[in-house]
Amino acid sequence: MKNNSKILHCKDYNWVGIEKKTYKTEGTGFKGISRFSLLGSGVREEALNFHTRYFEVSPAGYSSLEFHKHPHTVIVIRGSGSIILGDEVHDIGLHDVVYISPDTIHQFHADKGESLGFLCIVDRYRDKPQIPDQHMLDEVMGDRKAQRKARL
Amino acid sequence: MKNNSKILHCKDYNWVGIEKKTYKTEGTGFKGISRFSLLGSGVREEALNFHTRYFEVSPAGYSSLEFHKHPHTVIVIRGSGSIILGDEVHDIGLHDVVYISPDTIHQFHADKGESLGFLCIVDRYRDKPQIPDQHMLDEVMGDRKAQRKARL
Repeated sequence: MKNNSKILHCKDYNWVGIEKKTYKTEGTGFKGISRFSLLGSGVREEALNFHTRYFEVSPAGYSSLEFHKHPHTVIVIRGSGSIILGDEVHDIGLHDVVYISPDTIHQFHADKGESLGFLCIVDRYRDKPQIPDQHMLDEVMGDRKAQRKARL
Repeated sequence: MKNNSKILHCKDYNWVGIEKKTYKTEGTGFKGISRFSLLGSGVREEALNFHTRYFEVSPAGYSSLEFHKHPHTVIVIRGSGSIILGDEVHDIGLHDVVYISPDTIHQFHADKGESLGFLCIVDRYRDKPQIPDQHMLDEVMGDRKAQRKARL
């Protein structure tokens, strides 16, 4: 079989040949976040059943508050921050690993005065993220710390 | 749906609740290498179609020289080293990303005087690694740097 292997060399959280992209092309409810599609979407990597992306959130930035059927595997490789996970808020730091189970509302915050960078691995074929409405937030989070922290 | 999310907090490349294990329970051809099964094999993570493991190779150690049908996604998160990838040898360093395509012979070496630690993500259901025989090595690697570096 053809050897389609490749190496993406990294320097300071930039990978040779990988473009730094907008987090999402539409929508609101996020701030100061970039996306790098590392592996899985290239033609050489068709054998991969999952995509590996790197997201970087600038200080005071945050990702979308969202949920979806596909689970996430996340590994922090830069800085620290916090994550809303269902009705809880957790601090996360270097090399912490997060499993986000199906349909769990989540949002990343770079709220420790530094950038938060993390790898996020997902199924190649997956459903689109959905934004929870206020009713759902009330139901899942109640009047708890998670809801007070959430940004829509 | 039940929130089965979880966080594995890390300190110095050790994760709370994750056991440091032997790299392989049988066979030879590897040296100074440990395995940490981070996500995918627990009952709470049944929705994951892939496994995330962390391997750490001590200075002068190496993984098995092997090949298999399933591809690998690898991200270096500690130190540096080198990798045999088919008939080539490449240096790898912090945050470099490696795609190992199906059936490509590969072996990791911690040959830079420090530990080499990397995440390795694979399909949940995958074939067993195979060890190449000398005939195959001659065919793939010829009398090149890769064959001289390979350890069986």
